[in-house]
Amino acid sequence: MNLSELKQEVFDANLKLVHYGLVLHTWGNASGIDREKGLVVIKPSGVPYETMTPDDMVVLELETGKIVDGVLKPSTDAPTHLAIYRAFERVGGAVHTHSTHAVAWAQAQRDIPIVGTTCADYFYRSIPCCRSLTPEEIERDYEGETGNVIVETFRERGIDPMATPAALARNHGPFCWGKSALDAAFNASVLEESAKMAFMTALLNPTLPVDEALIEKHYSRKHGPNAYYGQR
Amino acid sequence: MNLSELKQEVFDANLKLVHYGLVLHTWGNASGIDREKGLVVIKPSGVPYETMTPDDMVVLELETGKIVDGVLKPSTDAPTHLAIYRAFERVGGAVHTHSTHAVAWAQAQRDIPIVGTTCADYFYRSIPCCRSLTPEEIERDYEGETGNVIVETFRERGIDPMATPAALARNHGPFCWGKSALDAAFNASVLEESAKMAFMTALLNPTLPVDEALIEKHYSRKHGPNAYYGQR
Amino acid sequence: MNLSELKQEVFDANLKLVHYGLVLHTWGNASGIDREKGLVVIKPSGVPYETMTPDDMVVLELETGKIVDGVLKPSTDAPTHLAIYRAFERVGGAVHTHSTHAVAWAQAQRDIPIVGTTCADYFYRSIPCCRSLTPEEIERDYEGETGNVIVETFRERGIDPMATPAALARNHGPFCWGKSALDAAFNASVLEESAKMAFMTALLNPTLPVDEALIEKHYSRKHGPNAYYGQR
Amino acid sequence: MNLSELKQEVFDANLKLVHYGLVLHTWGNASGIDREKGLVVIKPSGVPYETMTPDDMVVLELETGKIVDGVLKPSTDAPTHLAIYRAFERVGGAVHTHSTHAVAWAQAQRDIPIVGTTCADYFYRSIPCCRSLTPEEIERDYEGETGNVIVETFRERGIDPMATPAALARNHGPFCWGKSALDAAFNASVLEESAKMAFMTALLNPTLPVDEALIEKHYSRKHGPNAYYGQR
Repeated sequence: MNLSELKQEVFDANLKLVHYGLVLHTWGNASGIDREKGLVVIKPSGVPYETMTPDDMVVLELETGKIVDGVLKPSTDAPTHLAIYRAFERVGGAVHTHSTHAVAWAQAQRDIPIVGTTCADYFYRSIPCCRSLTPEEIERDYEGETGNVIVETFRERGIDPMATPAALARNHGPFCWGKSALDAAFNASVLEESAKMAFMTALLNPTLPVDEALIEKHYSRKHGPNAYYGQR
Repeated sequence: MNLSELKQEVFDANLKLVHYGLVLHTWGNASGIDREKGLVVIKPSGVPYETMTPDDMVVLELETGKIVDGVLKPSTDAPTHLAIYRAFERVGGAVHTHSTHAVAWAQAQRDIPIVGTTCADYFYRSIPCCRSLTPEEIERDYEGETGNVIVETFRERGIDPMATPAALARNHGPFCWGKSALDAAFNASVLEESAKMAFMTALLNPTLPVDEALIEKHYSRKHGPNAYYGQR
Repeated sequence: MNLSELKQEVFDANLKLVHYGLVLHTWGNASGIDREKGLVVIKPSGVPYETMTPDDMVVLELETGKIVDGVLKPSTDAPTHLAIYRAFERVGGAVHTHSTHAVAWAQAQRDIPIVGTTCADYFYRSIPCCRSLTPEEIERDYEGETGNVIVETFRERGIDPMATPAALARNHGPFCWGKSALDAAFNASVLEESAKMAFMTALLNPTLPVDEALIEKHYSRKHGPNAYYGQR
Repeated sequence: MNLSELKQEVFDANLKLVHYGLVLHTWGNASGIDREKGLVVIKPSGVPYETMTPDDMVVLELETGKIVDGVLKPSTDAPTHLAIYRAFERVGGAVHTHSTHAVAWAQAQRDIPIVGTTCADYFYRSIPCCRSLTPEEIERDYEGETGNVIVETFRERGIDPMATPAALARNHGPFCWGKSALDAAFNASVLEESAKMAFMTALLNPTLPVDEALIEKHYSRKHGPNAYYGQR
């Protein structure tokens, strides 16, 4: 995939966020990475989805964050995306949304629990709600530190980021990732639906009972070495 | 109805699940049975609804589960459908969805209570939430045992599967059935609406008061020997 | 308005229920009355909205319930409509729906409280949730007695049916009425929105605080002798 | 912007309320002001959105409320808009809606708390739920006093109306404002989404934990002297 194709995919992934109903106004952004070239393609900041084109996508250097292609400013959240790409080496795409139910969990400062097969088909463990940033972190490099805290959370809790491809920035909202920009957008839609289901489950049964063997089974039948879901 | 017509109906029933808003991505499947030939027609696994055609439907032998027609793999949940058809002899069609509110009850490990006439018009008793599968059952034949536990639940509780045509696989979601694939899809839509109403009822009045005589009346005026609802 | 025009309006009112999102499948019906002729026009039973025409409307005698025009069976709920027309002499149209949030209150066996101006613009007092029918009433004439219990509720509580044009049949759902079939359908849409707002209000503040003077003001600025809302 | 352009913008802002899903029937109104001429342009009262044209907008004198252009009666809520324009001198547009979740908070008599960055990007402090009007205020000039109580609330609590551009009229619903009519409509959509998220947050975590430094950061990166969100 060349850079022009990656721009198109990142553009498509941004529109998918709208199509999935995850975005109000311009509140979302998707990016993709070319690991060989060390370049990240990301949505420009605050541009309406209706008029955006693939050529509006902004290209950044992974290591420096420097703009190497594009006339618009990149998404304000670009440093968060970059931190995720730098730490999680198998990630090919990342998205950020303010999808309603996932935000509700982030604002409640709670992990989104994996309490059923709908989420277990895509997320192996609860979606962690990260710690608050310190005032110093906010002051120093707010968006970059948001990404660092996500990375810290996964490392400290020993979560595999490819098996649980999302995190909640506390009192903010979800960041999701995946093998590609489109895959990350897909995961964002699963996360929102899971957050909605878990919200209602929490009201119907606050103990949130889980069935570990079932979760294990569902995740592994789709993603394990002997996966048998889907064609081929 | 010949096999080609059954494929068309099963295809239509799958699209109905989308039309009713019960399915996100490819998370649902519908099947129908030809009792005389002992053949079950079911959706292929993981195929997008947008590109699916009636000819993509997969034909299985009821008794063996062997594919006798079709080039695609059948839905991963096919063994659950087969177990339902084998045990409930008057069932002509079955569907599985991850519809949001029904899943919430399944994740809360609670039966969906019949607390009003909306559900009582189609479901005579609470929709049972089945027991968890044991790790051994999950290991042995996960999808088949999911069906077996549904059958076990109806037998142990003495529920008539044609009068209460749905069950909740615990921490998973609803399986519904009916006289045909389209009827099963219809029941799945009623179940979801009933689950939504019951969710809000449970929050407004946790005692979930029922009026048995009313439930009896509504079910029987539509389905009893002297039914008088609808034309003819 | 002649009978043909009334059929058209009743037909339109039935479609309005669908347009307002109050009806799933065929779960709703609207009727209108010609007081001079003593004739009630009502939707046929169980006919899909997509294929229904104005000529499918059924004409009944107000006093006897006898069909005087139309080849289809009238809505099963016709006797409830007739009871409302007989007792509430200024009613020109009536509708029944299973709209989601209004049903939730009916199933919770609670009145829908008037806790804000949105509902107070159209409903002067809480929407009463009627008592359960006795098994004898259900046996004798279920649909007629459903109407009788609505009438009984308004008489015993001293509610003016034109100022509070709706009731909840317990564990069933809302019946609404108004000056015409279209007005009744409009009121049904206001009721559902009010029920939704009241549901959330009840969760945010279970004491459901009311401001009587405000309710009085809003109702009277639209409906009182010195009403000044709208044009003319 | 001349008066004809302002009528067009106010018309557009009214339709935006419908587009954003904030309005059922005719329950909403938007206005804009020409500060130099001292004229306010506002939606007419009770006119359906489908047939309304820019020329139906009504022009009022800011100081007297007298109609200076237009054949229709202005929105019943015009005196509330005028009170807001008179007290908050930087306001260029105002809207009133009965959007579902914001109304739920107003009916619960609770401020909408700012518990996340989604709302903090546009609202610096909790949206205040104003005190009830006294029966005397309701009697004297209901709509005007509704505006006066909003102004009183902001003064007494020391809230900057341009940094927190909305208020809840108790047991009624939201009034929002902004730099223009379109900006006010935009803020109304953010308020409704924030109200929905806060509703769910309150159910998941009634303590509603806030992160002050984060709120401060998000508001200032969009609206502070060193704002860096968006293009330019």
